[in-house]
Amino acid sequence: MVNTGDTAWILVSAALVMLMTPGLALFYGGMVRAKSVLNMMMMSFGALALITVLWVLYGYSVAFGNDVGAGLLGDPGEFFGLAGLMEDTTSEAGGLPSMAFVGFQAVFAIITVALISGAIADRAKFGSWMVFAGLWATVVYFPVAHWVFDFDTDAGHVGGWIANDLAAIDFAGGTAVHINAGAAGLALALVLGRRRGFGREAMRPHNLPLVMLGAGLLWFGWFGFNAGSALAANNTAAVAWVNTLAATAAAILGWLLTEKVRDGHATSLGAASGAVAGLVAITPACSAVSPIGAIVLGVIAGALCALAVGLKYRLGYDDSLDVVGVHLVGGLWGTIAIGFLADPDAPAGVESLFFGGSVDQLWRQAVGAVAVLVFSFVLTLVIGFAIQKTIGFRITEEDEVAGIDTVAHAESAYDFASLGSSGSTAPLAGQARAEARNTERTLA
Amino acid sequence: MVNTGDTAWILVSAALVMLMTPGLALFYGGMVRAKSVLNMMMMSFGALALITVLWVLYGYSVAFGNDVGAGLLGDPGEFFGLAGLMEDTTSEAGGLPSMAFVGFQAVFAIITVALISGAIADRAKFGSWMVFAGLWATVVYFPVAHWVFDFDTDAGHVGGWIANDLAAIDFAGGTAVHINAGAAGLALALVLGRRRGFGREAMRPHNLPLVMLGAGLLWFGWFGFNAGSALAANNTAAVAWVNTLAATAAAILGWLLTEKVRDGHATSLGAASGAVAGLVAITPACSAVSPIGAIVLGVIAGALCALAVGLKYRLGYDDSLDVVGVHLVGGLWGTIAIGFLADPDAPAGVESLFFGGSVDQLWRQAVGAVAVLVFSFVLTLVIGFAIQKTIGFRITEEDEVAGIDTVAHAESAYDFASLGSSGSTAPLAGQARAEARNTERTLA
Amino acid sequence: MVNTGDTAWILVSAALVMLMTPGLALFYGGMVRAKSVLNMMMMSFGALALITVLWVLYGYSVAFGNDVGAGLLGDPGEFFGLAGLMEDTTSEAGGLPSMAFVGFQAVFAIITVALISGAIADRAKFGSWMVFAGLWATVVYFPVAHWVFDFDTDAGHVGGWIANDLAAIDFAGGTAVHINAGAAGLALALVLGRRRGFGREAMRPHNLPLVMLGAGLLWFGWFGFNAGSALAANNTAAVAWVNTLAATAAAILGWLLTEKVRDGHATSLGAASGAVAGLVAITPACSAVSPIGAIVLGVIAGALCALAVGLKYRLGYDDSLDVVGVHLVGGLWGTIAIGFLADPDAPAGVESLFFGGSVDQLWRQAVGAVAVLVFSFVLTLVIGFAIQKTIGFRITEEDEVAGIDTVAHAESAYDFASLGSSGSTAPLAGQARAEARNTERTLA
Repeated sequence: MVNTGDTAWILVSAALVMLMTPGLALFYGGMVRAKSVLNMMMMSFGALALITVLWVLYGYSVAFGNDVGAGLLGDPGEFFGLAGLMEDTTSEAGGLPSMAFVGFQAVFAIITVALISGAIADRAKFGSWMVFAGLWATVVYFPVAHWVFDFDTDAGHVGGWIANDLAAIDFAGGTAVHINAGAAGLALALVLGRRRGFGREAMRPHNLPLVMLGAGLLWFGWFGFNAGSALAANNTAAVAWVNTLAATAAAILGWLLTEKVRDGHATSLGAASGAVAGLVAITPACSAVSPIGAIVLGVIAGALCALAVGLKYRLGYDDSLDVVGVHLVGGLWGTIAIGFLADPDAPAGVESLFFGGSVDQLWRQAVGAVAVLVFSFVLTLVIGFAIQKTIGFRITEEDEVAGIDTVAHAESAYDFASLGSSGSTAPLAGQARAEARNTERTLA
Repeated sequence: MVNTGDTAWILVSAALVMLMTPGLALFYGGMVRAKSVLNMMMMSFGALALITVLWVLYGYSVAFGNDVGAGLLGDPGEFFGLAGLMEDTTSEAGGLPSMAFVGFQAVFAIITVALISGAIADRAKFGSWMVFAGLWATVVYFPVAHWVFDFDTDAGHVGGWIANDLAAIDFAGGTAVHINAGAAGLALALVLGRRRGFGREAMRPHNLPLVMLGAGLLWFGWFGFNAGSALAANNTAAVAWVNTLAATAAAILGWLLTEKVRDGHATSLGAASGAVAGLVAITPACSAVSPIGAIVLGVIAGALCALAVGLKYRLGYDDSLDVVGVHLVGGLWGTIAIGFLADPDAPAGVESLFFGGSVDQLWRQAVGAVAVLVFSFVLTLVIGFAIQKTIGFRITEEDEVAGIDTVAHAESAYDFASLGSSGSTAPLAGQARAEARNTERTLA
Repeated sequence: MVNTGDTAWILVSAALVMLMTPGLALFYGGMVRAKSVLNMMMMSFGALALITVLWVLYGYSVAFGNDVGAGLLGDPGEFFGLAGLMEDTTSEAGGLPSMAFVGFQAVFAIITVALISGAIADRAKFGSWMVFAGLWATVVYFPVAHWVFDFDTDAGHVGGWIANDLAAIDFAGGTAVHINAGAAGLALALVLGRRRGFGREAMRPHNLPLVMLGAGLLWFGWFGFNAGSALAANNTAAVAWVNTLAATAAAILGWLLTEKVRDGHATSLGAASGAVAGLVAITPACSAVSPIGAIVLGVIAGALCALAVGLKYRLGYDDSLDVVGVHLVGGLWGTIAIGFLADPDAPAGVESLFFGGSVDQLWRQAVGAVAVLVFSFVLTLVIGFAIQKTIGFRITEEDEVAGIDTVAHAESAYDFASLGSSGSTAPLAGQARAEARNTERTLA
């Protein structure tokens, strides 16, 4: 018998996490120039389409099938095509229909792939991106999800090595999602090389309200990502929910204060980026820290990532939209921070260094983080170069200057021509709530 | 005693489906020219406002009141003003408060009406649209909802003919919503006639990120639409959830591949349209097919609708935003596909032609689809012409050229004048994350 | 033992209410000129960040700690840092984890503060706004939340005076949120003074689709705000859900009809504003009226607020985005309307004047409303002037003309330059669904 409350919560959470990918498309899309916003968004929508199909076919089975050896890989045949999962049984995930868990995990796979695209804005062939997305999910994400998210069960199911043998804590995917995507983003930025004009020309976000909308939707969806990872509507979910709010809020403050001190201004791009940095950092830790711990973790995440996004200019890699500075750095910080800030009174019940514990949890966290980082970075380099050398990965310089939207998609994002210049075809228009009329009356 | 899990799920699902109408407003609004986006959005918001009030007054009762004869109409008096539905009883819908079901079904009525507006972009008088919306809901939607969604109960309630006598499967509204709205859209496009310049001038979408945002919100809300139609947080809902994801993803691939082969480019408009096509097609079938079946259904839906949207140019009707090509064609395909692809292991437990069944389910599906198509098409023609001949339905050609937003709403959608040309009032602005500063330091 | 259905519903509702603040940022952001949209949005995002941290530290405790005297204030020390709330017990809120309630109430505090910012568009120093936000939440909101939302319990918890001694009904915050924010908005508009050009120049909304998107997200989130305030997934929540839909729909009609009669046009800004007016007005009353009552309440709210937003021109205060006209007036109307329209058959079970009751409930409603109005107005004046006289609250006239985004945030919201004029760098672009191609074929 299904627990309807838990099922309701996971189906909603899955929908929330699904929304994160369109949210990411807006967040990323607003940050690029107007001539490449559609291509940017298409990389997210393309990932949504392709990874879903692969997940149904074999992805779920590779991630959550019975381990075929050493905790590295699930059996791709066990649930091929999601065979046998439509029946009305309570699954091993505990009172949930199996399909609810399948759906919830599907959207994690999708967003992880989509995150990477921020590193290669404006310059990747769309077809090559799709090939990359499919290969990367298959070779990197599905196995890593098995490592991190597939727990052994009493019923004899054998899962992945990080979850079970190492026992590192990654509640909702700091390692599996953010370090993983961040490392891949760095590798891919190196494979594709810098955009023309990188570090010389200003490449200003073309639509900051779009960026803030995207950040808002990401935050909204992230409650499903983090609190949904309890896989039940229980106290753990509630604590994760509050910690997700608290860390994100604190990270915005951390980022804005860093900007204010360094540059003299607190920017809207900083607020949006700070929110995402906080969300990334609390992701692995949201069941392990107290709300006060979440604030500490968040404010450091905000400040740290605000500094880290400058690295690309010093080191010369064009991680265009800061996948490294936000997701890799934020993911590493959140994963490691568990070793220092985990509060034994929190649902995870882990003792960290600052709460009377030993370094035990800290090294487990570090090993898991480094393993995924190296695995993802190396394999992404291999996949990236293989695509570069075969079908090509980067568009021509000419096309880059013209704008990838026109070239790759035969579209242009905006056309305001029918309004005349700034809407002047509407001389009487837009009288906000009949202001003009009232004004005349008042002033007469 | 209410089942709190089921109630939580349906209240959330109802909110998700409500969000689809603003989502549709953005999806449609981004597709028209900048001079008519507000009117486009107002048709959706107007439907939200008006149909809700009618639903409370008599719509719910016509749809879900006890049948007054032959399965064609519910008793308008039974629940007039939602009388008697505020008490805390478990309703016939099973462990749900009656009002949760009332709210969930209200937002279906709204979105169905709003969908039609895509066929008459840029050229309908707003007042006439509102009159149409009220009449159409009353004469077409409320009865059809009774036919398709109102099931007989053991407690003696008698519902509609398609649900009970014909026993066609329409899990979440392929027939009642999409074929219904699609047929009405075709009729209304014929009544109003073509836009000035149709087929000669390019009428490019003015804001494609808005279209993609709309598609994202529609997809998000559609999880409530489809999985919520289980009316419980159970295994059926979970299967419907996964099928909704799978078919939509596959439909995007189907549409983009069709475009790529035919036109040489995969467009963002194609991705957004493909998503909606997949969502439409899986709507009736989401409890009846397996995830693999959903992928097959979806990829065909994407390709089919990508071809179908070209029909209007060949046949000469100006279905401006492809209500026919996407909703009528997609709805027909999804409804009929149940006869071929339904998997007996899926929650609906139906045997289709490809799974050892007979043509039995297929003809039931076809009869239901054709009945609603013809009923909606004919009555919409009648209502449309009646409005055209009395208060008029179409704005003048002059007003159409000037732009309907200015004329009908005295507003203009955008005004960027205060930024100077392209934001040049901000010479130091938008230094993404202090790029300029870091750049100088690096390059010095 | 936690009730999973109720917990699922409250966690989702909390996420929905959180989304309202980004939604508000868009709603407000679209209404200002393009040169100040980012600052407008930053006031909401800043509130999200700061108020969350204060809530965790002491806000929750001031609002929901045991009363320290006369129902005016909770004990700030009881739950300082949310101490002791992480344990897995059923809280006093009934079957919910304490943290779910903490999170749900946190987002109410945030949005109340953010609402105020609409009164001071275009002209407030961002740092001063943040100082104001922190002080106002501490001195005004946290205590008022205690008054209105903190109920006595059988277990000996003592709450606030309006909830318990006065027994005024404020189901989801008409008094605590909307009258409170509206009165503060009026006070702050007086402190800061009028924008340059107020009443003389047209200050048209720069992006009406953004306004409508914001209104859509607010409406969506408001289902969590109102129906979530049942603190359970039960019949009361379902009735509140339907009433929220009904009143909002009716208010749109009320506003649009008022505009049509007065100005000759129904505007999209009117539809968006009408929706918010209806949402505000039904907030206190959504458990106390029938759906028909909600329609009556809503249509009056729409008409009343449509008239009220003109007051600022007559009286000369620059409540830029109508916090007074919509939230104060709408909140007062909804709060008072309970005394007339409450239906004893509704979940709250209150008899009002029109339903056989006495004036008893009416005067309770009025006392609560006036108390909060006066308290908020006076304290906001004090805080506002204190800030004005010390660190300053308003930017210079020069900066106001240049645009606050550039000055305060070193950013500009939009940059379409890379598209050339109106996207003309894309001569072949945007062929909506290959229209051009199909067109040629058809016309050939």
